[in-house]
Parts: sequence; structure tokens; C-alpha cells
Amino acid sequence: MYELVRVENDKVKIDGIDSLGGLKLDSDVTWIHVNARTEAELSEITDLFSLHKLTIEDCVDRRQRPKVEVFDEYILITLKQLELKSTIVANHLAIIIGKKYLITVSNKMPGEIAMVMEDLKAGKIMRKQSDSIAYRILDRVVDSYFPILDQIEDDIEIVEKSATKKTDGKKIAEKIFETRRKLLALRKATWPARDLFSTLSKGDLPLISKKNQIYYRDVYDHVVLIIDLVETYRELVSGILETHLSAVSNSLNEVMKVLTVISTIFIPLTFITGLYGMNFEFMPELQWEYSYGAVLLLMMIISGGMLFFFKRRGWL
Amino acid sequence: MYELVRVENDKVKIDGIDSLGGLKLDSDVTWIHVNARTEAELSEITDLFSLHKLTIEDCVDRRQRPKVEVFDEYILITLKQLELKSTIVANHLAIIIGKKYLITVSNKMPGEIAMVMEDLKAGKIMRKQSDSIAYRILDRVVDSYFPILDQIEDDIEIVEKSATKKTDGKKIAEKIFETRRKLLALRKATWPARDLFSTLSKGDLPLISKKNQIYYRDVYDHVVLIIDLVETYRELVSGILETHLSAVSNSLNEVMKVLTVISTIFIPLTFITGLYGMNFEFMPELQWEYSYGAVLLLMMIISGGMLFFFKRRGWL
Amino acid sequence: MYELVRVENDKVKIDGIDSLGGLKLDSDVTWIHVNARTEAELSEITDLFSLHKLTIEDCVDRRQRPKVEVFDEYILITLKQLELKSTIVANHLAIIIGKKYLITVSNKMPGEIAMVMEDLKAGKIMRKQSDSIAYRILDRVVDSYFPILDQIEDDIEIVEKSATKKTDGKKIAEKIFETRRKLLALRKATWPARDLFSTLSKGDLPLISKKNQIYYRDVYDHVVLIIDLVETYRELVSGILETHLSAVSNSLNEVMKVLTVISTIFIPLTFITGLYGMNFEFMPELQWEYSYGAVLLLMMIISGGMLFFFKRRGWL
Amino acid sequence: MYELVRVENDKVKIDGIDSLGGLKLDSDVTWIHVNARTEAELSEITDLFSLHKLTIEDCVDRRQRPKVEVFDEYILITLKQLELKSTIVANHLAIIIGKKYLITVSNKMPGEIAMVMEDLKAGKIMRKQSDSIAYRILDRVVDSYFPILDQIEDDIEIVEKSATKKTDGKKIAEKIFETRRKLLALRKATWPARDLFSTLSKGDLPLISKKNQIYYRDVYDHVVLIIDLVETYRELVSGILETHLSAVSNSLNEVMKVLTVISTIFIPLTFITGLYGMNFEFMPELQWEYSYGAVLLLMMIISGGMLFFFKRRGWL
Amino acid sequence: MYELVRVENDKVKIDGIDSLGGLKLDSDVTWIHVNARTEAELSEITDLFSLHKLTIEDCVDRRQRPKVEVFDEYILITLKQLELKSTIVANHLAIIIGKKYLITVSNKMPGEIAMVMEDLKAGKIMRKQSDSIAYRILDRVVDSYFPILDQIEDDIEIVEKSATKKTDGKKIAEKIFETRRKLLALRKATWPARDLFSTLSKGDLPLISKKNQIYYRDVYDHVVLIIDLVETYRELVSGILETHLSAVSNSLNEVMKVLTVISTIFIPLTFITGLYGMNFEFMPELQWEYSYGAVLLLMMIISGGMLFFFKRRGWL
Repeated sequence: MYELVRVENDKVKIDGIDSLGGLKLDSDVTWIHVNARTEAELSEITDLFSLHKLTIEDCVDRRQRPKVEVFDEYILITLKQLELKSTIVANHLAIIIGKKYLITVSNKMPGEIAMVMEDLKAGKIMRKQSDSIAYRILDRVVDSYFPILDQIEDDIEIVEKSATKKTDGKKIAEKIFETRRKLLALRKATWPARDLFSTLSKGDLPLISKKNQIYYRDVYDHVVLIIDLVETYRELVSGILETHLSAVSNSLNEVMKVLTVISTIFIPLTFITGLYGMNFEFMPELQWEYSYGAVLLLMMIISGGMLFFFKRRGWL
Repeated sequence: MYELVRVENDKVKIDGIDSLGGLKLDSDVTWIHVNARTEAELSEITDLFSLHKLTIEDCVDRRQRPKVEVFDEYILITLKQLELKSTIVANHLAIIIGKKYLITVSNKMPGEIAMVMEDLKAGKIMRKQSDSIAYRILDRVVDSYFPILDQIEDDIEIVEKSATKKTDGKKIAEKIFETRRKLLALRKATWPARDLFSTLSKGDLPLISKKNQIYYRDVYDHVVLIIDLVETYRELVSGILETHLSAVSNSLNEVMKVLTVISTIFIPLTFITGLYGMNFEFMPELQWEYSYGAVLLLMMIISGGMLFFFKRRGWL
Repeated sequence: MYELVRVENDKVKIDGIDSLGGLKLDSDVTWIHVNARTEAELSEITDLFSLHKLTIEDCVDRRQRPKVEVFDEYILITLKQLELKSTIVANHLAIIIGKKYLITVSNKMPGEIAMVMEDLKAGKIMRKQSDSIAYRILDRVVDSYFPILDQIEDDIEIVEKSATKKTDGKKIAEKIFETRRKLLALRKATWPARDLFSTLSKGDLPLISKKNQIYYRDVYDHVVLIIDLVETYRELVSGILETHLSAVSNSLNEVMKVLTVISTIFIPLTFITGLYGMNFEFMPELQWEYSYGAVLLLMMIISGGMLFFFKRRGWL
Repeated sequence: MYELVRVENDKVKIDGIDSLGGLKLDSDVTWIHVNARTEAELSEITDLFSLHKLTIEDCVDRRQRPKVEVFDEYILITLKQLELKSTIVANHLAIIIGKKYLITVSNKMPGEIAMVMEDLKAGKIMRKQSDSIAYRILDRVVDSYFPILDQIEDDIEIVEKSATKKTDGKKIAEKIFETRRKLLALRKATWPARDLFSTLSKGDLPLISKKNQIYYRDVYDHVVLIIDLVETYRELVSGILETHLSAVSNSLNEVMKVLTVISTIFIPLTFITGLYGMNFEFMPELQWEYSYGAVLLLMMIISGGMLFFFKRRGWL
Repeated sequence: MYELVRVENDKVKIDGIDSLGGLKLDSDVTWIHVNARTEAELSEITDLFSLHKLTIEDCVDRRQRPKVEVFDEYILITLKQLELKSTIVANHLAIIIGKKYLITVSNKMPGEIAMVMEDLKAGKIMRKQSDSIAYRILDRVVDSYFPILDQIEDDIEIVEKSATKKTDGKKIAEKIFETRRKLLALRKATWPARDLFSTLSKGDLPLISKKNQIYYRDVYDHVVLIIDLVETYRELVSGILETHLSAVSNSLNEVMKVLTVISTIFIPLTFITGLYGMNFEFMPELQWEYSYGAVLLLMMIISGGMLFFFKRRGWL
């Protein structure tokens, strides 16, 4: 149930244990990761580290926004880990940084946690303190936003290419809407994270060492970059939609014009043929020898005149 | 008329009384709830607790925005309790926190008040002080916003599914407008509440104990979360509307194309049939033996040519 | 020309006088109201109270925004009084608060001034100081915004009801535009007033007594409420317009579909009748006994096939 | 080339000189105005007053935004003077305020400079100091924005009246676009000027006397008023455009309905006439005596039925 | 691989070297420029100047936003150099300002670097310090944004002229979209640069000399000007698009009207001709001598009546 990482004299030991009963917090750093969805599942941790009631609530409340909360004994950080499936899935992740311990709670073990554990074991993390390990996790989680951005970028490129073409407009509109959803999901995860990392990098938190501030500031920069790109993409997508709608409207216009011109030219002609198709006994024109030719000529004049008129009005 | 809750030595007594005459404020905490719509109905309370004239006004003014007002002897908080009926109904709620008393005024007893009274009696509230009880009420009221959010979420899902389908567009537009109204109502209730809880959680109010600040901060977080979600949903709804309009416009386009093509192909053909339906005596073609076949062939060539032309223009 | 109010030992005397010549400022409070549109009309007052040149300008400049300007001897407040006629008429009102005097200048005596004078005479204003009287005027002027809000609310309700109905679209668009104009006028009057009352209620102005600050804060609350409602109504109106346009577009779509279907079914049929209406001598079909029935059958098959096709495409 | 104004013992002397060679700065105030478009044209002034290299750049850079720059020896103010021709022409104006001198540089002598010189000569400016004269110029320049606002107001009124009428839509769209351009030009000139006058009126600049701060604040008020009006007009214009587009769309709708109804009623009737216009030999109906009357009756029933159907659907 | 510039006693020496091995930092200023795309390519520089790990990352991360980062020994500035090809290409540029050294890293040597080196050699830069040289580079890079602005301006003028003409709407929409992309690219490069130069010009950085602050402030002014213009152009472009769409919609409207009128006039006439084209044996009208004339008269009356009706409805 729990993943337990213990650091002692720069040595790292990783165990999977079922209960925290009898666990001693005498290592240099003790990191416990647990997948939990209810407060009950965190009862052992709550007791062992005497966490505040509201901390426990925040750890399992999937709706909780990214934020940082400073308590006397620890710092609570909540964040969203994003997975790109058919839609974007946001996994809730809570990190509690204590002096000699680190607790991570998520509703599903994200790959980032496992990667940091491996890094730790492989000695890739030099300074084995709770705040350094927390930075690694946060950095990995924020880095997981970039593939999503890349995919959105690809989507935009595809949509952009097809926007002015005469492809199926409905699909473009749906694709655009889908891209917007992804951007909204990304924005929802990053906007509050901005404040979070700004707080962590400002350096008045005793549990974050001075040396790590610049690292937290680096993550902050990444978050700001993502927010920037999200806003740029949103504008781009809006522009594409407008361009597409304008193209659709133009195409409709063009089609209408052809209809108008063809209909308008033939309607009077058809009327004339109808006229001389009437069966009245007394229609003197019908007997005249040249009237058929005269009617054909009249039709030519009419259609020619209309073509000339439409040309001059710029409808052709 | 009044609900009276008295706490003495951790014991809770709840009464319904008709008049405050002779009431002594010697309990540890005295909590009076009253349903009032006019200043006159609050005259007894005003006299007993010597409230400011403007406080009384704020208590019964249903238009009053959520706010906190700090007086020498008490803190006045006004808030909106939301009920989800066919539309969202906003009930005005005023809470006055004194050192040893708590006054709640509403235009209709909300379920939240009753729930907190029961909690108090059942001993679920440990620290029986006026600010702790007030927190409970505020927390419950803000929690009442979430079912509304959930319902909006459901609405959005329904609208989203039908937006790109060929269902009745008018109903979608109305449903979207209705969802927007709900979002506006929710926003109207939560935006000012943000400042309110920010003030309460900042901890320079002598009537709010240090310990309770984090709880008020928790409510503040919830309010910010709701505001965030409201903004996200607003964008989502706008996106859906745009997608829907784009789908409608595309569908119209498609229909127009079919009309154009069919009309445009048949109009010249019909003209030709009219031509040879004319009753002139001298139309040499009529007597030629192969002219019927020739005309049929001509028609095929014309329609074939047009189909080819439309295909090449991408109208089919 | 001038309305003169003098308060001495809590007694109030109101006079209409033509000139300020020989007026002594020995009352507890001297309140002078004057209707003026040019700087010249204020010359007597300027001399008597030695007002700054720019103050005089602000008093008669109808374009002046609501603001507060603090001078050594007095505070200048400018505000808009709104009247609801066929459009909203904004009357400019200037209030000068001195230690023992109060000057009000407007381009037209608003009802609010008269009402406050009556209140003063009737003893409804307890604390007869210049800042208390000024509060009364400001409160009344801001209260005069609410009937306009109410009327806008009524307009919105009417427009909302007719937006999705098939009533005359042009009238709805005009009504919506008119409502927007009213909202803009209201916003123009209230936005700057927000800063004004914020300044007055902050309590670092020596001419405003501590006791009155809460009253000014109450007016500030009202102004913020109006701004809030104006923004909400603006969004609502935008939503209604969009819904209406969407309804119009949908209705057009529906009409187009019927046209398409009927035209498209009859156009080929009419072509066939034309075909056999031609007068060629050699059309073998014409002599066959069952060809009439066969043609009728063909037409039924064609129209049936098209109906089936349209049904499947969802156009019916 | 230079306009030279010298103030000595309250006496004003104005000269036009060609070179600054030998000019002594011993007057109470020396004001030099020069029309310059290149840095070279300012070389004499640069040497005489030892101006900073960047100051010279700002004086002739027509793209420079309105701003104030404080140097040890002088204050540099850049501003836009607006002229209303067929479009709005923005002239760049730089003002350098020194202790005993004033330099004004523009790419074209604006009327405002000449007016202030005349006022100075006519003794209309009491306090003849460089900051007072500068205030006069700034005040005049900002006042020159108001006629443009007035003209925009007139434009809006005209557009508004024609927006819902059936006048030429293209002209309205162009007029609206033109008005927007003017508003943008005005905004571009006033937005940065806001900060400029805010800085000047805040009173921590040693070269601006305390007494003049209220005058600079007055100009600031004017700028804020213009910004306010520009924003209001922008919204108004947007509203007009939307109303106009809605009117156009409605009118199109109305036309479409008439077309639909007339077409749809006549298309089946025309088909029937075609049917009995066919020349088959064996069409029994043709010989029946009452079939003509029966067909006429059928046509009436069909058209009546369709009219009834359309009426019920609300299309008439 | 490296461009090496050494300043000693005001003398400038420029070399192209392949390795930094054995390089002594004993010159007055040592400026090294390197084109690098990976951290590995910067290893020699990192070792020589002991740069922070994150600095190296920022130097080669092309996604890095413009920012300034202050370290104990140096200041890191990242910026975008823009090139106008078929689209805007943003080259990443990093500048590291040390006390006696300057390092510039880019993914491609921009012309601006070469120009500053030439200026340096030609003695055009008086104060040969690292911060002065850095200013030169930054100034040049920001100046490179102006030609792009100019091109956008040209684009807008072209689009504007064709927007209300009946040219190909699709091309206009694409051109507008392209212009928006350029504006977005420019905004992405300048928005963060604003903060950057604001920080550099505020003067609390020990490595930036007091004298240079005003120069950095000048660059800041340029950046703000570009941001201003970008916003103005964005609005202009939006306005053009709206005008264009409105023109398209109006033109469609006009075409529709002609179609409606011509169709609607001929449809009943054609029906009448069909009526008397029927082959019933018993149609008494057919034998009447004047019925042909009567029918012609009836048609004239019908078409005249419709023309009159359309005229009165304003459709002509």
C-alpha cells in the first residue's frame, strides 16, 4: 500500500510496505508515497505526522486547485499531473514537505513519482533533502505538461491547414473545439500553479533551502512559459475559427452567385417558351413564319443583356 | 419567531421563543436566528445588542452584496445562500459575530442553519465559540454552491453532446443561455465572497481566533475554486455555442450546395423541353426524325458537363 | 436665484434670496444651493468663499467626471444625478463641503436637493453638520440610480421573453441596443463614483468626521452593487442577443430546408413533364398505350427515392 | 528658424531668429521653439543647454509615445498634438522644462504654441515661469482632443440613425470602421498621456512648483475623461455594428421567407400544369369534360393547404 | 567555433578561435560569442566562468521566454531576435554580463552581434564595458523588431483597401490571419521583454552602471511602444475583418434580393403559361378569340403589382 523511501548516510532504500505501524522516523529523510482517495486511507499517516485535518482533506479532494499552504511543521503543495489520453486526465497530487520527511499522496501513482525514486536510487539527486526531492517531483510533473502542449501544437497545425480548404467544415469545428478543451484543461492546471511556484521561489519559507530557490524559480519560469503559450494558442485557435467561418461564408457566397446567375438567366427564357407553348387558338405569332427565329433571337438578346448587367455589377 | 441557542459549560440548549424580552446574555455563547424581511422585525435584536443602524439595513436588504463589515463590538458578514429550483434562488443571509453572541438573519430559514444547530447539539463542533459556529455556517453555505456547479456540469455535457448533432438548434441555444444564467448567478454570489473570506482569513480581526484562520482560508479556497470553475465553464459554454453555430452554418452550406447543383442542372434542361414544347407552326426541328434523340443526347451532354464542372470546383 | 439654508442652535431656516451681498457666515452651518451653467453665475460664491479657479470650472463643466478633490479649506465633490426620461439624462452636481458651509451647484435643481432640505427642516437629520448633510445628498443621488436599474431589469425580462419567439427581430435588436445604452450611461456615472466614495470613506479627510465614514462606506457599497449589476446585465444582454441571433439563424435554416426539399423533389418531375410536352413528331413513347402510367410510376419512384434520401441525410 | 521668447521683469519679447549663436541665457525665462525633424537640426540647442543624447532622439522620433522623463537639469515631456483632417494626424511635440528655460520641439508648429505665445504677450499668464508656460501648452494640446471627440460623437449619431434603416449597409460598415480608427488614434494619444500627467501632478518633481500641481491634475482629469469617453464610444460603436448586422440578417430572413412561400406554392402547381401539358396519346383525363375544372379545384386546395400550413408554422 | 573579442586599454582585438583552452581572462573586457544548440557545446564556457547549471539550460532552451536572472557573479538575459522570412523566425539569444566578461549564445549568429563587434572595432562605442556592449546588442535586437512592424503596417494597409472591395474574400481572410500570426509572434517576443528592461533600468543591479540605466530605459520605451502598436494593430485587424465580413454579408444580401425579385415575378407568370399549355379537350378559354390578349394583360398586371409591392417594401 505504501511506497517507503529511506535515506540514511546518502544511502537510499526503497520498500513497499502495508502498514506504517512501528515505523521510526530516524532516517535522514523518510519519503512515503500512498495512493489514496478517501481521508480514511490516510489515517495512519495523519497520526504518525500529526497532520492538520484540512491537510488531509486537501490531499484527497480531487477538485482542490494547485496551491501551497504553509503550516508550522510542514508545507503542503497540491498540484495536477496531466495525462494525455483521448481527453486530458488530471490526476491530483499532494506533496507534504517536512524537515526530515516527505509525503506524497495521489489518486493513482503517477509515472513521475516512480521516476524520481529511481533517480534517487541511482544517485542522480545529489542533495538528498526533502525539499530537493520535492523539487524533482514538481519539476517532472510540470515537464509532463509539455508533451500536451506539443500535441496541441500539432492539432493546431492540422486544423490550420484544413481551415481554408473545402474539407468538411463540421470536423474542423469539432477539432477546434477539442483543442480548446485541451487548452482550458492545461490552463486550469497551470494558472494556480503560477502562484504556487512564485511563493516557493521567494525564499521566505524556512523549509525550502536558499540554494533550491533558483530551482523552484526555474519551474516557475516553465509554468509561466506554458501559460504564455496557452494564451497564444488560444488566440491562434480563435483566429483559425474566424478564418474558417469567413472561408465558409465566402464559399457559400460564391455558390449563391452561380445559382443566382444561372437561375436568373433561364427563368425569363423558360417563361417565354411557356408563353408560346400555350394552346390558345388565336395566337397570331404562332402562324408567322419567322417567329421561331425571332423568339430565339429575343432569348439571346435577353440572356446576353443579363450577362452584361451581372458582369458590370461584379457578380461574375 | 426566534431560534435561541445557548451554550453553557459545553452544554447546548435550543429553544424557539417569541420575544427577546428579559433575555439575559449570561451564557458562554448565545446564538439567535431570526427570519426577517424588514428592519422593524429586528427592533428587539437591535435594542438588545445595540447594533448600528446600517447593520440592520444590511441584514434585511436582499440586494446587499456579500461583504464583511467590522464594527467595534461585532463583525457583520452578509452572504448568499443558493437554492437550485427551476432557476437559482439567492437567499440573503446575515451573520453577526460578537464576543459572546452570534446573530443570524435570513429572509427564509436555510437548511444550513438547522444543520449547524443539530451539529452543535450532537457535539460535532468541539470549540463552541461564536467564530467557530460562524465558520460552520459559512462553510455549509459555500458547500451548497457545489451541487449547483455539478448540475451546470451535467447541463454542459448534455449541450456539448447535442451541439454538433442535427437536433433542434433552438433548444440548444436556449439551454446554453439558461446555463449561462446559472453561471452568472453563481458568479454574482461568489465574486464578492472572495474578498470576504480573504479578509476573514488574514487574521487581523480580534473577534476571529488565530486557530480559526486556517479554516476560513479553507472556505476561501473553495470560493476561489468555484470562481475558477465558473470561468472555465463560461469559456466552455461559449466554445460550445460557437461550435454549434459553426455546425449550423456548415449544415446550411451543405443543403445549399445540393439545391444549387440539382437546380442548376435541371434549369437549362427544363428550358430546352420548353423550347420544343412551343407551338410555332414553322419549327423545322420538330419534323426531323432524329431530333428527339439529338435533344436527349444534348441534355445528357449538358448535365454531364455541369456535373464535371461542379466536381472540379469542389462543390460535390 | 440662491436657496439659502441656515442652521443655528439646531434650528433650520430656508430662504430663497437673489444676491449673496452682505451675507454673514456666522451660522453653525450655511448651505447655499444655486443652479448655474456658467462660471459667471458663480462669481458671488467664488468671492464669498474664495474658491479656487479650477473648482469653479469643475462646478459648471457638465462633462466633468465624478471625482473628489481635496483643497485646504474645502472638499469638492462632483457627481451625476440621473433622470430616466426617454433616454437617461445625466445632470451634473457639484458639492463643496467646508467646515461651516456647504455649497451645491447643479445645472438644474434636482429633486434630491429639495428632499434633503425638507428632511433637514423636518428634523430628520440629527447631526446638523456640513458633512452629514452632504452624505444625505450623496446617498439620495446614488439611490436615484436604482429605479433606472429596475427599469433596465424590466427591459431585459421583456427582451428575454421575445428573443426566442418568432416576433419581429428588428425590434428586439433595437430594444437590446437601447438597453445597452442605458447600461453604458449608468456605468459612466458609477465607475468613477466608486473611487470617489472609496476616498471619502477611508477617513483621512479632516472635514469628514470619523462617525460619518461608515455612512460614506454604505454609499460606496451601493455604488459597487450597481456596478456589479450593470456588469451582470451587460453579460445577460449579450447572451440574449447571441441567443436571438442563433434563433434567427436556426429559423432561416429550417425555412431553407423546406424550400430545398420541395424544390428538389419537383424540379426533376417538372423536367419530365416538359420532356413529354415537346412537340417532336417522332417520339415513339407518346403513342405507346401504357407510357402515361409508366411516367406517373417513374415520378413516384423518383420522389419516393428523394424523400428517402433526404430522410436518411437528416434533412427532414 | 527659431521662435525666441524672453521674459524679463514680467515683460515679454518675441523674436524669430535664425541662429542661437551668442544667445545669453540671462533672462528670467527663455523659451525657444523650433520645428525639427532630424537630430542635426537640434545641434545648436543641444550644445547650448547640454541636453542628453537620448533627449534629442526623443525630440525628433515621431514614433515616440507620450511620456515624461526626469533628468538632473530638466524634465522632458513628449506628447501628441492631434489635427482632424480626413483622418487624424498626430504631430509629435516635445517640451523640455528647465529652471530658467523652456524648449519646445515639433515637426510642424502647432497652433497651440502660437496661442500660448500670444497669451503670454497679452499678459494672460500671470506667473511667468517655465513650468506655468509648459502647463499652458499642455492644457491647450489636451484641449485640442475635444473637437475630435465631438466629431466622433456626431459620426456615431449619424451611424446610429442609419444602422436600423434599410440604407446601404456597406457604407455603414465603412463609416463604423472609420470611427473606430479615430477612436484608436485618440486612445493611442491619450493612454500614455495618463501616466504622464499623473507623474507631473504628484508633486515630487523639483522643477514643478507646488502651486502648479493642481493645474497639472486638472489636465490629468481631462485626459482621464477622454479615455473614459473613448471606451464608452468604442462600446457604443460595437453595439451599433452588432445591431446593424442583426438588422441585415433579419431583413435577409424576411426576404427569404417571401421567396420560400411564393416558390413553394407555385412549384407543385406548375408541375400539375406540366403534367397535363404532356402529349401522350392515351391520357384518359384529357377527354373527360370536367377534368379542367377538377384540376383548377385541386390547385386551389393545394395552395390553400400550403398557405394554411405556412401560417401555422409562423412563416407568414 | 568561438568569436572572441578582447578589449585592452581601449584597443579591440577580434579573433575566431576553436577552443577556450588556455584562455586568460586578463583583458579589460573579454567577450565570447558562440553558436550552440546543446548544453554540451557550452561545456568549455561553463567551466571557464563557472556558470550555474540552470543558466546553461536557459542558454540553449529555444523555448525559454525573454527574462533576466540575477546571479552573484553575473546577470543572465535571454531575448528573441526576430527575422522576417515567409513567416517570422524567432532566434533565441542569451547574454551573460559579468564584471569583466560578456558571453553571448545563440542558435545562429544574428547580424546584430556582428554589427556590434564592428561598431566596437570602429570605436563607435565609447565606454567599453560589458554592460555598455550588452546595451548595444539589446538595442540592436529590439530595433530589429521595427522592420517587422513596418511590414505588418503595409500588410494592414493592403488588406484594408481590399476589404470593402469585391475581391476574393478567401484571400483577404487568409491575409488577415497571416497578419495576426505575425502580431502574435511579435507580442510573444515583446511582452516578457517589457519586464526584462524594466528590471534592467531600475538601477538596483550592481553590474549595470548608473549611467547606463537611462539607455536601458530607452530600450524599455521602445519595447513598450512596440507592445502598444501591436495592440493597436490587433484591434485594427479585428475591425477590418468585421468590416469585411459585414461587406460580404451585405453583398450576399444584395444578390439574394435580385434573385428573389426576378424569381418571384416570373414564377406566377410561368405557372399561367403552363396552365394554358395543358391539353384538356374542354378548356373553353382556349377557343375565345381575345383570351391570349387577356392573359398577356393579366401577366402585366401581376408583374406590375409585384414590382409595386417590392418597391414599397424597400426591396428594390
